Amino acid sequence: MRTVYVIGIGAGDRDHLTLEAVAAMNRTDVFFTIDKGDAKGDLAALRAELLARHVTRAHRVVTARDPQRDRTAATPGYAAAVGDWQERRAALYERMLADELGDDGIGAFLVWGDPALYDGTLRILDGIRERGRVVFDVVSIPGISAVQALAAAHRVVLNRVGRPFLVTTGRRLADEGPPPGVDDVVVMLDAVDAFARVPTDTARWDIYWGAYLGTPDQVLVHGDLREVRARIVGLRAELRARKGWIMDTYLLRRIR
Amino acid sequence: MRTVYVIGIGAGDRDHLTLEAVAAMNRTDVFFTIDKGDAKGDLAALRAELLARHVTRAHRVVTARDPQRDRTAATPGYAAAVGDWQERRAALYERMLADELGDDGIGAFLVWGDPALYDGTLRILDGIRERGRVVFDVVSIPGISAVQALAAAHRVVLNRVGRPFLVTTGRRLADEGPPPGVDDVVVMLDAVDAFARVPTDTARWDIYWGAYLGTPDQVLVHGDLREVRARIVGLRAELRARKGWIMDTYLLRRIR
Repeated sequence: MRTVYVIGIGAGDRDHLTLEAVAAMNRTDVFFTIDKGDAKGDLAALRAELLARHVTRAHRVVTARDPQRDRTAATPGYAAAVGDWQERRAALYERMLADELGDDGIGAFLVWGDPALYDGTLRILDGIRERGRVVFDVVSIPGISAVQALAAAHRVVLNRVGRPFLVTTGRRLADEGPPPGVDDVVVMLDAVDAFARVPTDTARWDIYWGAYLGTPDQVLVHGDLREVRARIVGLRAELRARKGWIMDTYLLRRIR
Repeated sequence: MRTVYVIGIGAGDRDHLTLEAVAAMNRTDVFFTIDKGDAKGDLAALRAELLARHVTRAHRVVTARDPQRDRTAATPGYAAAVGDWQERRAALYERMLADELGDDGIGAFLVWGDPALYDGTLRILDGIRERGRVVFDVVSIPGISAVQALAAAHRVVLNRVGRPFLVTTGRRLADEGPPPGVDDVVVMLDAVDAFARVPTDTARWDIYWGAYLGTPDQVLVHGDLREVRARIVGLRAELRARKGWIMDTYLLRRIR
């Protein structure tokens, strides 16, 4: 039986790797990677470094070209765009698993952060298993997410005592505003500066923001949203221009 | 300057420890632990095992007796009860840091899961720093939380595509029911079988439940809440009686 590991490798700090992840990488025959073009070259380099540093047994790396995703779609079309892209990726993964992995082989996908948090790999593999053309087991290995790296960098707790917090996307925060009844909101995947549109006339919000978390390029900003939001908007534009891409996340905390 | 590490050590699986946590443990002079009595002896044993397995330099372990918390308080009194307990614990920690840690010493608290998720240690240390009697830096080191161990064990993604999820407590779910507009709810610290009271007449909910996650005693249940909730209620009572304590968490997913 083939086995496929989906291994969370953290959000950028090479030492956020778990002992379980290192052990799984050392049982892996074939690492499957996707070439996303030059923009995320830094991330591909970190992945390569983790393999070089921690994997002591013989292994292969198989790289496929990423099917393009329509990132311009508005919210109503977003799930459909993701769906299309996931189908193309499923076809790609299915072919890679069938062609490159022996009958008892162990393959692995190294994913950023945690496979259980805004990552499509587990869902794509489920879809392939349902089609039934390639038979394999899936093992999910948790990793430190960008949200945890953010909280650690700011030395902050995500929840307040006995209270809930919401994890959502920038797109949704921009479309719907802060959800009623929730005073702590973690935002991932914000391509639209959603924090800048949060109303601050009736409530004060603190923001804990971080980019390139856990890497030498890490940037942190913390303060009253009214006072720091223009600075964060400027920083995001500047950093994106300088590096070609940005990965950031933040916690919004309503102060009554 | 004194330094205090707050190190997340995962939810029970010894291999969920990160490389960063291992490195920090090997810079630590004094590990501070709290004796919570016999009930959680298994957890204390895991902590001791992690030290024995991973720490190669000389260190001391200082253990204090836990100040009792009033766990019978209802929701309105809950924050106050936690506040009282945190003050007693702050006094205890302050004394330990002042008495046991040299001027340039490094101390560490090993906490379950992630210090940023329903753990009071960072908040208590902030309070001590504000009092100003002991001066020290705090470093927060993220760990794999029970929520991530749950998702990995079920090979499930916590969010659905482009959608939010809420992390909340059993107490709050029991008092307020599932929050409107959120279809994915992660519940921690449920002492009241809150899942059993979720209405299932107008909506179908799936539950992904797990106890003692990542340990040899791990128990998982997944299914339609209507069909499995009586079984989970029974299991919780049985496991708690057998072991003396239970640690569990779950994801509720509304199926439209």
